[in-house]
Amino acid sequence: MAIDFQFSIVLFSLLFTLVHTTPLPRFPSSRVHPELQLSSASSEKTLYKTKFFTQILDHFNFNPQSYQTFQQRYLINNTYWGGAQKKAPIFVYTGNEGNIEWFTQNTGFMFEKAPHFKAFLVFIEHRFYGKSIPFGGSKKVAYANSSTLGYLSSTQALADYVTLINDLKKNLSASDSPVVVFGGSYGGMLAAWFRLKYPHVAIGALASSAPIRHFMGVTSPYVFANIITQDFRSESENCYKVIKGSWKLIEDTFFKHGGPEQLQKSFRLCNKDFGPGSVEGWLQSAWTYTAMTDYPTPSNFLSPMPAYPVRKMCEVIDSSVKGNNTLDKLHAAASIYYNYTGSVKCFDLNDNSDPHGLQEWQWQACTEMIMPLGANNESMFPESKWDYEDRSSYCQYAYNVTPRPHWITTEFGGGHDIERTLRRSASNIIFFNGLRDPWSGGGVLKSISKSIVAIVAKEGAHHVDLRFSTKKDPKWLKDIRKHEVNIIASWIKQYHEDLKSNN
Amino acid sequence: MAIDFQFSIVLFSLLFTLVHTTPLPRFPSSRVHPELQLSSASSEKTLYKTKFFTQILDHFNFNPQSYQTFQQRYLINNTYWGGAQKKAPIFVYTGNEGNIEWFTQNTGFMFEKAPHFKAFLVFIEHRFYGKSIPFGGSKKVAYANSSTLGYLSSTQALADYVTLINDLKKNLSASDSPVVVFGGSYGGMLAAWFRLKYPHVAIGALASSAPIRHFMGVTSPYVFANIITQDFRSESENCYKVIKGSWKLIEDTFFKHGGPEQLQKSFRLCNKDFGPGSVEGWLQSAWTYTAMTDYPTPSNFLSPMPAYPVRKMCEVIDSSVKGNNTLDKLHAAASIYYNYTGSVKCFDLNDNSDPHGLQEWQWQACTEMIMPLGANNESMFPESKWDYEDRSSYCQYAYNVTPRPHWITTEFGGGHDIERTLRRSASNIIFFNGLRDPWSGGGVLKSISKSIVAIVAKEGAHHVDLRFSTKKDPKWLKDIRKHEVNIIASWIKQYHEDLKSNN
Repeated sequence: MAIDFQFSIVLFSLLFTLVHTTPLPRFPSSRVHPELQLSSASSEKTLYKTKFFTQILDHFNFNPQSYQTFQQRYLINNTYWGGAQKKAPIFVYTGNEGNIEWFTQNTGFMFEKAPHFKAFLVFIEHRFYGKSIPFGGSKKVAYANSSTLGYLSSTQALADYVTLINDLKKNLSASDSPVVVFGGSYGGMLAAWFRLKYPHVAIGALASSAPIRHFMGVTSPYVFANIITQDFRSESENCYKVIKGSWKLIEDTFFKHGGPEQLQKSFRLCNKDFGPGSVEGWLQSAWTYTAMTDYPTPSNFLSPMPAYPVRKMCEVIDSSVKGNNTLDKLHAAASIYYNYTGSVKCFDLNDNSDPHGLQEWQWQACTEMIMPLGANNESMFPESKWDYEDRSSYCQYAYNVTPRPHWITTEFGGGHDIERTLRRSASNIIFFNGLRDPWSGGGVLKSISKSIVAIVAKEGAHHVDLRFSTKKDPKWLKDIRKHEVNIIASWIKQYHEDLKSNN
Repeated sequence: MAIDFQFSIVLFSLLFTLVHTTPLPRFPSSRVHPELQLSSASSEKTLYKTKFFTQILDHFNFNPQSYQTFQQRYLINNTYWGGAQKKAPIFVYTGNEGNIEWFTQNTGFMFEKAPHFKAFLVFIEHRFYGKSIPFGGSKKVAYANSSTLGYLSSTQALADYVTLINDLKKNLSASDSPVVVFGGSYGGMLAAWFRLKYPHVAIGALASSAPIRHFMGVTSPYVFANIITQDFRSESENCYKVIKGSWKLIEDTFFKHGGPEQLQKSFRLCNKDFGPGSVEGWLQSAWTYTAMTDYPTPSNFLSPMPAYPVRKMCEVIDSSVKGNNTLDKLHAAASIYYNYTGSVKCFDLNDNSDPHGLQEWQWQACTEMIMPLGANNESMFPESKWDYEDRSSYCQYAYNVTPRPHWITTEFGGGHDIERTLRRSASNIIFFNGLRDPWSGGGVLKSISKSIVAIVAKEGAHHVDLRFSTKKDPKWLKDIRKHEVNIIASWIKQYHEDLKSNN
């Protein structure tokens, strides 16, 4: 999941929002690492073909403007498909807030399991991201203001998916092929919601690291930061203490004579054109995203990183090889996230580039995706109260829009009564969560019924199950994937039995 | 259900649509009978209190105009409520296409069962009907064109209901009170869909006479007319033959010299200012609505009528008391529907009054409610092929709007696979249907699972189960209501058990 942009604002509200005239936080993952797109030309040839579908702008009203259409991108791979006659399954990835190619390349699970299931693979891009831009495909027009951005919402995205899937099945003459939906992070939320809202279209959903409960009044805003804290603390108490103590050190340094120059030097910043809080934001992003992607093998999701990167960071912080200067240690640790390949000569804190096209998440975070985040004293981050009014004011300022903070739980449920309500009215969802993933705090961590199954990996991070396997995958990860395959196989088996007996 | 206005157009397309420059068929029930509103002043005092809720215009997008609000009317009765502390239930009627007071007054079942369940009663008016008019409450503005009417849709209505219910529960501090939704006809479709889409809000639905399968590609367009035919034929073969043969007689009469005068006299028409097909349309409406409301006791839903009115009509047609003139017989039979009280001196075929405010159904029938109707040779009506293109052209003409004929089944399911899909992904719905009701052809007539139960009354008509009971109710009707009460009681019991065990 693209972390809620407001997070940094809230965490550093006093320093950050007051200083930056345009309080659009940079998406940290985008700053320095070699872009994943480097590999997409070759991937596209082998992994998928690109298609476009003419999608309607608004599914839920019938104004003239609702009939406008746009080209929605989707990627397919039919190499392994068993065919319509065999009623072989269709696996659909419900795209999240970015370029669908990126998510596709990081969802190896579907490619690796397709041969076993003889599955047709489809990856659908979320409206307003990547190349699926309404209003003639121009981001400039589509992102212009709330009149155009207004059509960017989760319910519209789900309706896009169901419309596209129905059309695809029709074109494949595959009305009897069962559909299973997959997604990670926000894509996982969409997969779960898709199964809840469109059970007549998808027989089941694998919702990986889907924090469908991370909404106001359901999950504490402070759980997220506390899980990150716990990740670091579990590696070493000293590591946690150093980070927790660093914020005051950095702030003091910034405000002392020659301080910015010292920070520039310690952190290899390209220039000293940065305000108070910037270094803190940059570090906070490194710790946060590294905790999210604390995978057991080397990876390149948000940035290229070694296996167990949180451990690596703490090893650097705990080590005295490079001396005892705390700022140097923090720089070395953050470099594991920002510069593991060693190719970056200096870091630009003002780099707002967005290689995965995640920018419009900010709109979603200003309308329906009010996923409260903050940090309390338990965490290693500077204390920062979650305040809905801050969010609301920001959204008014940035988009002239008022959030609807209770809409998601109204539309999709997921409140305190989730177990009771889902147990008797839904089925066939896998909720995977890795407990090292800060988003797991808003996930479904307990099985709800025989067929709504929570799979929890103590050592897992953000949708690690969906990643391409590697030879070095630990046993727990292999077991989890096997478990998921078995459950999905049972849905398909049940479906075919029902079909035969005409039930 | 307000019968699809297109029905008459289609049935008499050659005669009707070519002649009328504005092809808006009159809603037949509105012409002549004493209005039910006569009783509403007294009813309001005893049955319910009127409230208004500030509702948002568009739940599914975030354009500036979506934030506009309107006053949504709802009626409550808390006389019997057991209270929030006792977690006593809330029964909600999901209003259909008309004045909510009218539906409320015809849903005695909820009032009569409220004491038993200690239920709080709520009847919510559907947006764009009655007094729940967006755009400042002005029908003139709200009905002006597709830019305003565009917000009239079933998904928006359902989202209205969930929003209002959540707010009401909050205000009552009744978060643990289970909600059961009820509805008849289109209101029944909404009740069923509400349970499917919002199971976290309603624990179950009684969907009475809800033709959720009466959509393109699912149910034959000809079933509706054939059920009406069967209703009349079941009373007498002669009755059926007379009606079936009458169309040619009327047409021939109309076109012969002095024919319109003869028709005017036979049918007691106020004037001879009517075109070809008008008398046929007027009769067809009488047969259709009488079949729909062929109740076993005297009633006053669409118009005041005796018990078993189809039988009464056929008795008149079969009898030779009034001589052997077919036109006179048809007039006498139609008068059972149009003038059972005897207060009408003459009939005005051009009367377009709409006492229950059903007019905007036509917009719904032009956008998403594409419920195909026609008549084949088996029926007693003039043959008339269902042709989607006719509907589409008409809608283009009337509103400059293109229907989305597959949207409803896309959004809600209900296709051929309904049993398979609902069995494993939904629960707690009662589908009641009376087989004398022409809409039953598009209903769910077979139980789908232990908790998705079809109750079918061979002798029942349109949502007869929801009506106030009378002393003369037949045993089968009493038994059905008991059955429904038992099922609803079991849902509530289960809910309370789940609540206790924290499931």
